[in-house]
Amino acid sequence: MIYLTRRERFSAAHRMFRQDWSDEKNLEVFGKCSNPNWHGHNYELFVTVKGEMTEETGFVMDMNTLKQIIKENIIRKIDHKNMNLEVDFMQGKIATTENLAVAIWHQLEPFVEKEGAKLYCVRIDETENNSIKYYGEKK
Amino acid sequence: MIYLTRRERFSAAHRMFRQDWSDEKNLEVFGKCSNPNWHGHNYELFVTVKGEMTEETGFVMDMNTLKQIIKENIIRKIDHKNMNLEVDFMQGKIATTENLAVAIWHQLEPFVEKEGAKLYCVRIDETENNSIKYYGEKK
Amino acid sequence: MIYLTRRERFSAAHRMFRQDWSDEKNLEVFGKCSNPNWHGHNYELFVTVKGEMTEETGFVMDMNTLKQIIKENIIRKIDHKNMNLEVDFMQGKIATTENLAVAIWHQLEPFVEKEGAKLYCVRIDETENNSIKYYGEKK
Amino acid sequence: MIYLTRRERFSAAHRMFRQDWSDEKNLEVFGKCSNPNWHGHNYELFVTVKGEMTEETGFVMDMNTLKQIIKENIIRKIDHKNMNLEVDFMQGKIATTENLAVAIWHQLEPFVEKEGAKLYCVRIDETENNSIKYYGEKK
Amino acid sequence: MIYLTRRERFSAAHRMFRQDWSDEKNLEVFGKCSNPNWHGHNYELFVTVKGEMTEETGFVMDMNTLKQIIKENIIRKIDHKNMNLEVDFMQGKIATTENLAVAIWHQLEPFVEKEGAKLYCVRIDETENNSIKYYGEKK
Amino acid sequence: MIYLTRRERFSAAHRMFRQDWSDEKNLEVFGKCSNPNWHGHNYELFVTVKGEMTEETGFVMDMNTLKQIIKENIIRKIDHKNMNLEVDFMQGKIATTENLAVAIWHQLEPFVEKEGAKLYCVRIDETENNSIKYYGEKK
Repeated sequence: MIYLTRRERFSAAHRMFRQDWSDEKNLEVFGKCSNPNWHGHNYELFVTVKGEMTEETGFVMDMNTLKQIIKENIIRKIDHKNMNLEVDFMQGKIATTENLAVAIWHQLEPFVEKEGAKLYCVRIDETENNSIKYYGEKK
Repeated sequence: MIYLTRRERFSAAHRMFRQDWSDEKNLEVFGKCSNPNWHGHNYELFVTVKGEMTEETGFVMDMNTLKQIIKENIIRKIDHKNMNLEVDFMQGKIATTENLAVAIWHQLEPFVEKEGAKLYCVRIDETENNSIKYYGEKK
Repeated sequence: MIYLTRRERFSAAHRMFRQDWSDEKNLEVFGKCSNPNWHGHNYELFVTVKGEMTEETGFVMDMNTLKQIIKENIIRKIDHKNMNLEVDFMQGKIATTENLAVAIWHQLEPFVEKEGAKLYCVRIDETENNSIKYYGEKK
Repeated sequence: MIYLTRRERFSAAHRMFRQDWSDEKNLEVFGKCSNPNWHGHNYELFVTVKGEMTEETGFVMDMNTLKQIIKENIIRKIDHKNMNLEVDFMQGKIATTENLAVAIWHQLEPFVEKEGAKLYCVRIDETENNSIKYYGEKK
Repeated sequence: MIYLTRRERFSAAHRMFRQDWSDEKNLEVFGKCSNPNWHGHNYELFVTVKGEMTEETGFVMDMNTLKQIIKENIIRKIDHKNMNLEVDFMQGKIATTENLAVAIWHQLEPFVEKEGAKLYCVRIDETENNSIKYYGEKK
Repeated sequence: MIYLTRRERFSAAHRMFRQDWSDEKNLEVFGKCSNPNWHGHNYELFVTVKGEMTEETGFVMDMNTLKQIIKENIIRKIDHKNMNLEVDFMQGKIATTENLAVAIWHQLEPFVEKEGAKLYCVRIDETENNSIKYYGEKK
């Protein structure tokens, strides 16, 4: 098995909050991240796929194909957008990095499998200090 | 002369647009950065001051004092905020990184001079690829 | 399972040596790292915890709580200190990064578990080229 | 078990292609990476070994020994070289990062084992966006 | 005056040598960088322009325009190429980073000036340890 | 004029204090950096020289020569040492990064000039947030 990781970046606005909670309750639980006027980040997304190397090409999967899958299904939809208001795969979810990682996993998995590889890990760095990893349901 | 640089970071939402322009015109000039639903960044702010070394301490200026000046006058006001709606020193300005650098210069200059040093440069990195520097009016 | 990583930094002095060895023997085994006059590093500490996402908040664990646990139990005790002489959880141990990672694991584990999460990995980067990871006893 | 990672760097030229394919076919499969006039990268190599800590030294393995093993067996042979033409352990292989990671694994494994540790992972970053990891045959 | 910097990246092969020197002489002067079989790097290019801020837009120059100028005139010609054999603006020059910086300056200057800004600095990082800056003829 | 920068790194212990001050006074002025048991850092040193390009070689100065000058005169003396106790060029000086930058300037200047180049800047990064630059007496 070989593991191949592609990094892509996007900048987005978000806010962590629950509509069924008061502003005070949201502030208490989510702190400054619940600001009703939004704030934003430069997110770094690392997508890792795994597979056997194809002897004919020496590739697990064409890195360029992986890049296009991420750009088409994630970056195009979320870059320079408001995660809460405009991103289809985040609707009805609290805009935490945890939820974002799980949602991105489900967006990417069918496209990676169509290429004969397995999605292994979705990692999102929200800042240089905060990072989330999701390896799928089974782990 | 010695030059001393302190880095601080903040995350904020913003939107580039002119209220006296239509959405179409804003989109044409500012592109995806004019998104009415906002987007955001992790900004890195580098503040450089210069001065002679004080022989008694071997300092140009106490780095901790510089850090406190930046935190009190910039970070506290802009971190996890909406630059257009909530930051006093950005009111009435288009929220470009150029305007932000000039505004931060004017916020910091009196406090740096009170410490006997000269403000030399305000640099803001909006992404790992885009950076702005401002050295004050005279240069 | 979701994995959440928080980075914190500290600067400390240390020296690798055994008191029951001669200076020559220490120099032979630990090289320039055994310098009796100490040397030091900017250490980067990455603490990873894992857990199920709480549906109510979309969090595995509040990142701010994790940050406070690390600051109170590690950074406050080791930053700008001499690891051999002043850090309680390193007493009686050779000040290698391996021993440091294991000691930090034992400092953090009860506090992470009290929050309902599992400590998964303690990683310490001593320089940009040298890094240690510890995943606990069982692995 | 403790995991210890050493980073080393090298700069090399390469070209991805199969001699039994036409230039057109190579271009179709490998894109701009098949340029017959070569191109090159600054590669970052991360070698991770694992083992129990030796109580006498607090080391899994002397980091300096690991560094020497990598320098002697990999860096000396590949740095400032043409990977396709000049590197013995890449002869007869397509010069993908996948093949490179596997080849480096086989170069390093006997030397790491001689030191009483286990080779755990070979990671190669070709650019800041593209990375490959190999954990050996069994995983 | 405001200074605006755009980073772009490219990967290329090169070789430092003079055709009128023997291989021995080239090796003596240029060391391992004279390898006749080429080697390569991931180059980071930082282009800085300066100008007054346009009050209407809050821009010195549209960052996107600067990006397109660099991509069209530099990256398209040099990325995944052999600098000595394939890059028009490096013909007849020794492929040092110094010569590359000067050549890139001359490629970019007319396009930057057409936009009403001044080219201020071309910086090229060949590795994380080696960097060249060129500010034009007058400085 | 071309500007050439070489980065080198060193790890050292230090303490900021004046022997003619009490521990209380030192603590008041230098804070946690005055810890009598020392602390330490991974310092990054960036040395910039400037000069005309030699047409014969396309070099301002051989980067390898610059590297050797820094290694022989700075790194060999300060790496894995105690800056206050063991480094000849820091004797009698308060161990601030400001004083260190000036001292390194005076160590390097004659060797750079012997090579026909001018020393332009000594920059030292003490942490990722704190940085000092010195351009010599005249600036």
